Amino acid sequence: MEKNNGVSSAVIRRLPRYYRYLGELEAHGINRISSKELAEKMNLTASQIRQDLNCFGGFGQQGYGYNVESLRSEICKILGLDNNFNAVLVGVGNLGHAFAQHIDFKGAGFNLIAAFDSNPELIGKKVGSIEIIDFNKIEDFCNENCVDVAVLCVPKEAANPVAETFIRCGVKSFWNFTYADISLGHPEIIVENVHLGDGLMTLCYRINAAKK
Amino acid sequence: MEKNNGVSSAVIRRLPRYYRYLGELEAHGINRISSKELAEKMNLTASQIRQDLNCFGGFGQQGYGYNVESLRSEICKILGLDNNFNAVLVGVGNLGHAFAQHIDFKGAGFNLIAAFDSNPELIGKKVGSIEIIDFNKIEDFCNENCVDVAVLCVPKEAANPVAETFIRCGVKSFWNFTYADISLGHPEIIVENVHLGDGLMTLCYRINAAKK
Repeated sequence: MEKNNGVSSAVIRRLPRYYRYLGELEAHGINRISSKELAEKMNLTASQIRQDLNCFGGFGQQGYGYNVESLRSEICKILGLDNNFNAVLVGVGNLGHAFAQHIDFKGAGFNLIAAFDSNPELIGKKVGSIEIIDFNKIEDFCNENCVDVAVLCVPKEAANPVAETFIRCGVKSFWNFTYADISLGHPEIIVENVHLGDGLMTLCYRINAAKK
Repeated sequence: MEKNNGVSSAVIRRLPRYYRYLGELEAHGINRISSKELAEKMNLTASQIRQDLNCFGGFGQQGYGYNVESLRSEICKILGLDNNFNAVLVGVGNLGHAFAQHIDFKGAGFNLIAAFDSNPELIGKKVGSIEIIDFNKIEDFCNENCVDVAVLCVPKEAANPVAETFIRCGVKSFWNFTYADISLGHPEIIVENVHLGDGLMTLCYRINAAKK
């Protein structure tokens, strides 16, 4: 399996869940939790949790469990959420518009600093507090600003050309909702592909299994 | 880990990916693929693929590999995509509107048969080919139609009341985008929670790791 700094991608994908659950515990004033209690809350095994967290250092204390605030803070650093990375959105149709408003970019480590579209009816308007900029100005923008990630919410056929534009400007990471494979020919880029339909198919399986 | 019919949820979550990749191969006229080739395409190991597929039966042939069309068809049946389940959407703001248009419900095993909202400016309008119905008519609709899944795109504070309404009508499965925990007090329901921010946090980790 893919490894990042020697940590399997399966573990990395669980980290955001830990971060979210610990955030909820903290918000409810809970200071301390055992791996067993956390496991019940998260539908994992206590041993899985301890194994995962041991990849990054010994955070718990035997007999005590984990301090919620410290553990959350450690995971925040592991995830790199305190780096103030910059993200831009490309494609401000329903999907892009929804994500700009629905997703907590800041909480996930990113400042959403610009949005681009080619539709003249959208250019100059705002999505949230961000002004929609002409898509043709992407290269100028990237030259004047530090852009770490491009969030792609454009039609599938536009995905590759748009990605190429960003890659030319030195932007090497993408959050890709387009269903296009933008990494072909670009093994150096980091892409997080989102296939929402996968969760729906999993749900279909579970519903079907329950009916038997 | 959670088990469904003796199959781990990790395997179940990989099935939609297999289904998608096999669909792409089929669309490109490729009839046959080895586990090694499929592994390279999917960034898994050949042995993982064989183990996963062996959970459901022996589909490959040693020396031949897998027949793309048959394997895809088998996975379609395993996922239960041919059951014509019915889904309804609740909440037709930007997010709900985007999902109704962006997500291939049919390809994931569902007919999207209705959309509900409480906003009088939306009621009676259409999202795609579906008319937006008054939210207060959910119970009538569920009594007259077979509804398998409710897709929740309502504000967080509305999630639990909306879920309760559906549970009262006998709808026990949810695709939940609201961040609310709707399964509290309802261990019998099937919920697929979507936390889009998790993928963004994973991306943050990967970008940070690459900079080191």
